[in-house]
Amino acid sequence: MSYDFDLFVIGGGSGGVRAARVSAALGKRVAIAEEFRFGGTCVIRGCVPKKLYVYASHFPEHFEDAAGFGWTVGEAHFDWKKLVAAKEKEITRLEGLYEKNVRAAGATTFDSRAELVDAHTVRLVKDGRTVTAEHILIATGGIANRHDALPGHEHCLVSDDVFDLPELPSSIVVYGGGYIAVEFANIMHGLGVETTLIYRGKLILNHFDQDLRELLSETMQAKGIKIIYEDMIVEVEKRSEGTLRVHLQKGEAFEADQVLLALGRTPYTKGLGLEAAGVKTGDKGEILIDDYSRTNVENIWALGDVTDRVQLTPVAIHEAMCFVETAFKNNPTRPDIETVATAVFSQPEIGTVGLAEDVAAKRYETLEVYRAIFRPMKNTLSGRQDKTLMKLIVDGVSKVVVGAHILGPDAGEMAQLLGIAVKAELTKDAFDRTMAVHPTAAEELVTMYKPSYVLKNGEKVEG
Amino acid sequence: MSYDFDLFVIGGGSGGVRAARVSAALGKRVAIAEEFRFGGTCVIRGCVPKKLYVYASHFPEHFEDAAGFGWTVGEAHFDWKKLVAAKEKEITRLEGLYEKNVRAAGATTFDSRAELVDAHTVRLVKDGRTVTAEHILIATGGIANRHDALPGHEHCLVSDDVFDLPELPSSIVVYGGGYIAVEFANIMHGLGVETTLIYRGKLILNHFDQDLRELLSETMQAKGIKIIYEDMIVEVEKRSEGTLRVHLQKGEAFEADQVLLALGRTPYTKGLGLEAAGVKTGDKGEILIDDYSRTNVENIWALGDVTDRVQLTPVAIHEAMCFVETAFKNNPTRPDIETVATAVFSQPEIGTVGLAEDVAAKRYETLEVYRAIFRPMKNTLSGRQDKTLMKLIVDGVSKVVVGAHILGPDAGEMAQLLGIAVKAELTKDAFDRTMAVHPTAAEELVTMYKPSYVLKNGEKVEG
Repeated sequence: MSYDFDLFVIGGGSGGVRAARVSAALGKRVAIAEEFRFGGTCVIRGCVPKKLYVYASHFPEHFEDAAGFGWTVGEAHFDWKKLVAAKEKEITRLEGLYEKNVRAAGATTFDSRAELVDAHTVRLVKDGRTVTAEHILIATGGIANRHDALPGHEHCLVSDDVFDLPELPSSIVVYGGGYIAVEFANIMHGLGVETTLIYRGKLILNHFDQDLRELLSETMQAKGIKIIYEDMIVEVEKRSEGTLRVHLQKGEAFEADQVLLALGRTPYTKGLGLEAAGVKTGDKGEILIDDYSRTNVENIWALGDVTDRVQLTPVAIHEAMCFVETAFKNNPTRPDIETVATAVFSQPEIGTVGLAEDVAAKRYETLEVYRAIFRPMKNTLSGRQDKTLMKLIVDGVSKVVVGAHILGPDAGEMAQLLGIAVKAELTKDAFDRTMAVHPTAAEELVTMYKPSYVLKNGEKVEG
Repeated sequence: MSYDFDLFVIGGGSGGVRAARVSAALGKRVAIAEEFRFGGTCVIRGCVPKKLYVYASHFPEHFEDAAGFGWTVGEAHFDWKKLVAAKEKEITRLEGLYEKNVRAAGATTFDSRAELVDAHTVRLVKDGRTVTAEHILIATGGIANRHDALPGHEHCLVSDDVFDLPELPSSIVVYGGGYIAVEFANIMHGLGVETTLIYRGKLILNHFDQDLRELLSETMQAKGIKIIYEDMIVEVEKRSEGTLRVHLQKGEAFEADQVLLALGRTPYTKGLGLEAAGVKTGDKGEILIDDYSRTNVENIWALGDVTDRVQLTPVAIHEAMCFVETAFKNNPTRPDIETVATAVFSQPEIGTVGLAEDVAAKRYETLEVYRAIFRPMKNTLSGRQDKTLMKLIVDGVSKVVVGAHILGPDAGEMAQLLGIAVKAELTKDAFDRTMAVHPTAAEELVTMYKPSYVLKNGEKVEG
């Protein structure tokens, strides 16, 4: 049987575009459909605009810090619309590059929503026509949870909406405790917005190392972000004057200009025609796949956030590269998503790779923890109180560094390179043999000669 | 024979203090003499104040960059005296910590110059008394070359003098092409001083990777630092109005408020009594030592800059730790000064570890060079033209990464952690298996899948 295409990719985000581009470059006949904007979550409403807003929100700290170094700075004013326009220009440039590159590789692009009709047929919603393909790759990503069960949720924002708000609010409530909630709380606070974070849990950033979580939470509060733990929003009420009144379960209520729901992201499969094609999904709507990103339907594959493995751009790209090896290069390749370094672009940043202390303590009989907390050199003159925390988690038997955790400036950059060492399972000795680079913050990581404490079967025994 | 001390350390810099502190903590009877201020070059007139001034000089870029992110910043004014005072307060704090910690460990401190009388006797110049010691450790460091042969050198500064200038000059000539010259040229330019760098060589930063050297040189010039290569200062003339007139060998002459000589540092051994003790020195006045930091005199040792090995604080500290192992713990330990990561705190920074491309090309028959040059994400909105350069140098046979070189923001932090991977002789494959952290700059280092070019016997054959 002959198909219109060798591969049809649904979704023009990081994973889909990479798969389409590389497959097309191999000479395959490839099409890719995107219903909104090429670039997907990362470029359009995720990593890229988020980091640009992080930069924007960090300038007031630069202005303040300057005083300790002899600078007097005139009053600063912030124009939200200018930032939005600058962001828009940049992501439009990137969007264009994504589409241009995939086309340049020989793929056909469709600016249309695409839905499955059967296992080999896709309908382009824009003009209703159908096309066929030998392989279909679903890379539709995820979508922010709008919490339909919350009375007044229709008055609230999700992260997609924040970037293009017509006005910067004067106050905001961020609801959630994950990295998106934390990043936006920091961005908004940095831009001068009165910010309250509400989280039903005990501490932000579940699954991260406890030390990082505690110190970041304290630091955010010391900066002036109000954090309310162990409470929930039960209603968001729209007031006649346009503000919102937020009611909490424990009885507290207050006003805010905006409420941002940061309650996680769900695989984006609604209306995709999965049933028509016979593709199975899991409890969260995620597409179920095997180790090679193949669904239960032989010729249909899925990758990226829609599969709910690790929701990170580089993981989706890696899965795409593995998919191409498996599907088109006769080289079945499993994505390797063990020991993935990540960053949270909070202020200060988190950079982390490997196991948190509590997880490692369950896995290793003897655990050495090396821990340093110090004031970054810049803060000695600026007077800023933020502390930097660095931690190495070491298997006491093999001496392999199984986790590395940083809270502090440039932690994301550090985590990337620590990631190489931790992924390669280097021992603490390899860290110790490395000469310090002075003066840096990272030198702490190669000069921690004695464990701060040792755990045996999860209990502290020394230090 | 019984001595007053088990160990007498001459010089209270990073190496000397470390040796004294750790030896004293072992229970040895230790004395340490410092003629100026505890902390030495690093704390008092090197790494620490330098980095503080780098921070200070970087703020104008923050103020400028803010505009692209929607900020309007009022006029900024810089008060040099405030910076000097803030720096002084901080280094005084550190100086106190150094002396306090070495005393707390049980060592005796002398705020006096000390000179050798014989192999076991030291004279404290301040009060003229002599003390004896079983071991003597010379850690007197280095001293900036004041270029006595240059007519008018007495009107010039060396790096020691710059930190405490009573006034910020309106113009400065920096003479030299090493990292001290480059760092001060950037600091002065950043603080608004009209800056000219004069170097007799073809390009700044000899011995660094050529690509970094070229791009940094271009970037500095694009920022507005004037660089004159392949010329020399033949005279510095003091004018009646107080400015200096600088005459170059090729005939050019111009005025400047200050001239900074950054022409290298010499081992500081003058008047130390080395001859009296029978300690041999080399051509540059450096104390000659064996692999264990021992001089030709059995009980006299030397470490740090006075030995002219690698003039870096962490190296001196490492040598101190090895000295203690060798001299007092019956565990002869050679300092390992192979593959030392270093940073140049230029703007942008350099971070580097391992072999430069040209050196590696001579050592390896096949060399793979992975090279990326890009605009850091922050600069997309700021409009700043600075580019980031990242390079990995890989042995084409073993695939070991033998060099890693970065020019860009946070390059020093990155070099520290790359240092672990390169020191451990990880292969390029270990880099490739590491998932990217997005969006960071460092992710480039784990996503360069194909060599930019390959060298065979030093000649480009591909790419």
